[in-house]
Amino acid sequence: MSDRLSLDTLNGLDEPGFVAALDGVFEHAPWIAAAAYGERPFASVAALHEALMAAVWIAPTDQQIAFVSAHPDLAGKAARAGDIAPASVSEQAGLGLDRLSDAEYARFETLNAAYRERFGFPFVVCVRRLTRDAVLAAFERRLAHSPEVELATALAEIGHITRLRLVERVEGPGMPLIAGRLSTHVLDTHKGGPAQDVRVELYEVGASGRARLKEALTNADGRTDGPLLSGAPLRTGTYELVFHIGAYFATRGLALPGQPFLDQVPIRFGIDDPEGHYHVPLVVTPWSYSTYRGS
Amino acid sequence: MSDRLSLDTLNGLDEPGFVAALDGVFEHAPWIAAAAYGERPFASVAALHEALMAAVWIAPTDQQIAFVSAHPDLAGKAARAGDIAPASVSEQAGLGLDRLSDAEYARFETLNAAYRERFGFPFVVCVRRLTRDAVLAAFERRLAHSPEVELATALAEIGHITRLRLVERVEGPGMPLIAGRLSTHVLDTHKGGPAQDVRVELYEVGASGRARLKEALTNADGRTDGPLLSGAPLRTGTYELVFHIGAYFATRGLALPGQPFLDQVPIRFGIDDPEGHYHVPLVVTPWSYSTYRGS
Amino acid sequence: MSDRLSLDTLNGLDEPGFVAALDGVFEHAPWIAAAAYGERPFASVAALHEALMAAVWIAPTDQQIAFVSAHPDLAGKAARAGDIAPASVSEQAGLGLDRLSDAEYARFETLNAAYRERFGFPFVVCVRRLTRDAVLAAFERRLAHSPEVELATALAEIGHITRLRLVERVEGPGMPLIAGRLSTHVLDTHKGGPAQDVRVELYEVGASGRARLKEALTNADGRTDGPLLSGAPLRTGTYELVFHIGAYFATRGLALPGQPFLDQVPIRFGIDDPEGHYHVPLVVTPWSYSTYRGS
Amino acid sequence: MSDRLSLDTLNGLDEPGFVAALDGVFEHAPWIAAAAYGERPFASVAALHEALMAAVWIAPTDQQIAFVSAHPDLAGKAARAGDIAPASVSEQAGLGLDRLSDAEYARFETLNAAYRERFGFPFVVCVRRLTRDAVLAAFERRLAHSPEVELATALAEIGHITRLRLVERVEGPGMPLIAGRLSTHVLDTHKGGPAQDVRVELYEVGASGRARLKEALTNADGRTDGPLLSGAPLRTGTYELVFHIGAYFATRGLALPGQPFLDQVPIRFGIDDPEGHYHVPLVVTPWSYSTYRGS
Repeated sequence: MSDRLSLDTLNGLDEPGFVAALDGVFEHAPWIAAAAYGERPFASVAALHEALMAAVWIAPTDQQIAFVSAHPDLAGKAARAGDIAPASVSEQAGLGLDRLSDAEYARFETLNAAYRERFGFPFVVCVRRLTRDAVLAAFERRLAHSPEVELATALAEIGHITRLRLVERVEGPGMPLIAGRLSTHVLDTHKGGPAQDVRVELYEVGASGRARLKEALTNADGRTDGPLLSGAPLRTGTYELVFHIGAYFATRGLALPGQPFLDQVPIRFGIDDPEGHYHVPLVVTPWSYSTYRGS
Repeated sequence: MSDRLSLDTLNGLDEPGFVAALDGVFEHAPWIAAAAYGERPFASVAALHEALMAAVWIAPTDQQIAFVSAHPDLAGKAARAGDIAPASVSEQAGLGLDRLSDAEYARFETLNAAYRERFGFPFVVCVRRLTRDAVLAAFERRLAHSPEVELATALAEIGHITRLRLVERVEGPGMPLIAGRLSTHVLDTHKGGPAQDVRVELYEVGASGRARLKEALTNADGRTDGPLLSGAPLRTGTYELVFHIGAYFATRGLALPGQPFLDQVPIRFGIDDPEGHYHVPLVVTPWSYSTYRGS
Repeated sequence: MSDRLSLDTLNGLDEPGFVAALDGVFEHAPWIAAAAYGERPFASVAALHEALMAAVWIAPTDQQIAFVSAHPDLAGKAARAGDIAPASVSEQAGLGLDRLSDAEYARFETLNAAYRERFGFPFVVCVRRLTRDAVLAAFERRLAHSPEVELATALAEIGHITRLRLVERVEGPGMPLIAGRLSTHVLDTHKGGPAQDVRVELYEVGASGRARLKEALTNADGRTDGPLLSGAPLRTGTYELVFHIGAYFATRGLALPGQPFLDQVPIRFGIDDPEGHYHVPLVVTPWSYSTYRGS
Repeated sequence: MSDRLSLDTLNGLDEPGFVAALDGVFEHAPWIAAAAYGERPFASVAALHEALMAAVWIAPTDQQIAFVSAHPDLAGKAARAGDIAPASVSEQAGLGLDRLSDAEYARFETLNAAYRERFGFPFVVCVRRLTRDAVLAAFERRLAHSPEVELATALAEIGHITRLRLVERVEGPGMPLIAGRLSTHVLDTHKGGPAQDVRVELYEVGASGRARLKEALTNADGRTDGPLLSGAPLRTGTYELVFHIGAYFATRGLALPGQPFLDQVPIRFGIDDPEGHYHVPLVVTPWSYSTYRGS
């Protein structure tokens, strides 16, 4: 992050310098930065991003379609062949879209083809804000859109993509909100206090199984030392927290059944807001528990 | 069940008839019925079973060991070859012990061998009261027993086995308790009433995955029309109820996120008491839930 | 109740007998029974009551007003002087309206006067379905009604009054629902089972304090031996259950603070549906509890 | 607080200055400060207090009794006549012990007399750490002590009293913990977020009724802007939080009964640890709620 440009510096550049400095934030579209140039100086990085997107939103439909069309297919041939913009490649890799099985690859190809056939431009989605299953679900949901709604949807996704890219390129006051947070807390209402040393696992749940993202122990306050997820958008999708409550109560020396009523407690929940704070606590005894979306 | 002998009839038989009537309840051990014969008449079927087991408990250790030794290995060669008592065969089949993979079969063989080596008699367990995973766990736990404790454990298991067999053979007053019960209830505290038409699935959870045992819909009172499990011992082990809450709230027309916070709610719990009543309710809103071992 | 008339007998009476048999159900209005006479035979007591009320609802407005006007003032001079229909007197006594303080009496007189001034007929309410505080609240709320809405409200109240009277007068198939039910259940999730021998008090809560209606102990299933309220309409109003949880946990021998976190747990709740079932359980540990409107 | 002596300054005083500086912390007992003088320099205010109390604990029993005897009766004649140490007077006034009714005054007099008769010294309690009802309960409980246990109890109370006085007199590193904290949080699991603008009242509950201590509104995070109690010891005793939930849900525009199931929700709880943190949240829908001692 240390090589980010300061907003001050950016505000002071001439137009060619300004456009060059933002090259790659919007793919193959220097006209966007040029259009926003007149709005300088920008009071915040968020205001800069809004000005850039405003140029996109007011462009003629033909130009919007051409702009969207310059994006690579998701997980498509170009991506496999290396023939796409470097930023898109690494973003798709983060979701594992470069490591698809043949069957999954075939499914993406089919969806891409159907989408292009229907809308005439490639499917664009901010892959850093969704799990792989949520990408597939969005693909199918968006195929039912009208062309107008879908164009607006694609542009809104580009807004999410470019906001993330801009934050990696420019630093300054008023950074736009790009990160969500997931936290937990385990309260033992059998003893009346926080539950310490409870092992907590976090899984991403998909159609084909679940993948462990993280493991942590609760501290003396019943919390994990840091958030379970933070510093980036939360990928919308389905998750599962597993609390190893049986092992915890066993260390407290309670007289419990050989086969305890509660051992590994799973809490399965959905994340819908990538920039939201999800607090998912567990209030627990050996015989009961409750959870809720907290704050 | 209609061909069961009445307790009255049994009480009126002479000794050879009495022994013959109970043949097969205790494997290869007519001396047990003979020893209990003097205690007639029995006021209840439970008292009859207690008298039979009392004969076992007061027998000399050598006779007890010989009695246990007459039982077949669990899932062993004899079982595969058909060379065991018919009752044992069908009981083991209920747990799927006759359909083991080669690896599982090998594991049972290894445990059987280690057990015989250590104690000199075969591993006996009332398979109708445990899940397959719980049988394996019990196998390993009991291998650590002292010979005295293990002999007593084996005899206690025979008590459970024969109680179940006796109930299938004799009817009359004072039947011993052999059945447990699992029930549930879904309460919607968003609307303040029972949740109707919630799909509920029940799974048995094992080391190698989970198997669905049952599926039901809640009725107007938020309950399933009958218990989820009943009429037989509950197999000790780990279970999971999955409540399809997302689909339920969707039909109520609430404004919820595209990716709902709660969709399929799993409640994983252990059953330790095969003859107990486990009531596992769900008190739920789109944003919270609680559960407990109820009554 | 043994001197109630059977519906069969009633169906077989001639018109003068039928009208005489129902005398007093509707105050000073033999025309109502006469109008319903033609609908015989009635298949259920509920159908009989519906036929009687139908005669009221289709009567001309003038006749409806005259009918309502024949009712005594609530807690009014006539009631004190004994100059009203016997049924009304005893119903009002049930709510303590014959034992008002001078200040309360004055308040009722003021409301009665304002009501008569506005609507031209006396305030009629089915006092057996409300607490005294709820009567006063209804009085003030109904003073804001339009004349048409208020006449309909008064007739609906007479429907409630006469349904209760009819049930005391006639027995037969299809009795109308006139009774609600309040029940509770205490579950101890510290030990994982029902809480036995918990003292539970039920209070009616009013503006000037609370009055104890009932006290009970929980049994081995954590329930009271019978419902806390049943067999009559639940009076709409505010109630409080007080669970003596501190004393209960003290008998379990737990190591708790000298000043326990939970001692007497009050649950204050409203009843809105006199014929409803209110189940108000307590799920409790020494450090937590939850409650809900159950079923 | 600005005129407190710094620990550094105190550490640098000669013995007469040191003793004079601490005059009044321990009543009529300059020998205590003199005995601790040799332990200088003190690394923390907490260590200073421990050294002072150590001098008390190792003193001969006769001297301990004489020291305790120099304290005034609680709410006694001397207190009314103004003839006691100024610190004690203002501390007792904080609890309202200078405004007792005649009946209450008589009860204190009776207890004081019984206590003196039994133990030979006056009843000493750190009144800033108890509610008035808790003082009376402690009085009665301590009357049953053996003389040895009661002397130790009185000295421990003097430890609490003098810790509070020392903190008001000396400032420096390592201040002893003297303050507790009470906080709350209202979470609306009907909508899935914090409940804003809920009126919360805090009452102290005594045998003769309850007194309101504080009222607050929840903010956008469902919390009150500051703790409900903080900056001083929490008085051990019984409290009640009342959450005005009915008014809150009414502003959300939900379709609820005229007589809502939940309106004013009382949570009655005990405080046992004056220096503890009590977090008492409410997780609530219009039809359910739960609370617990949180963290």
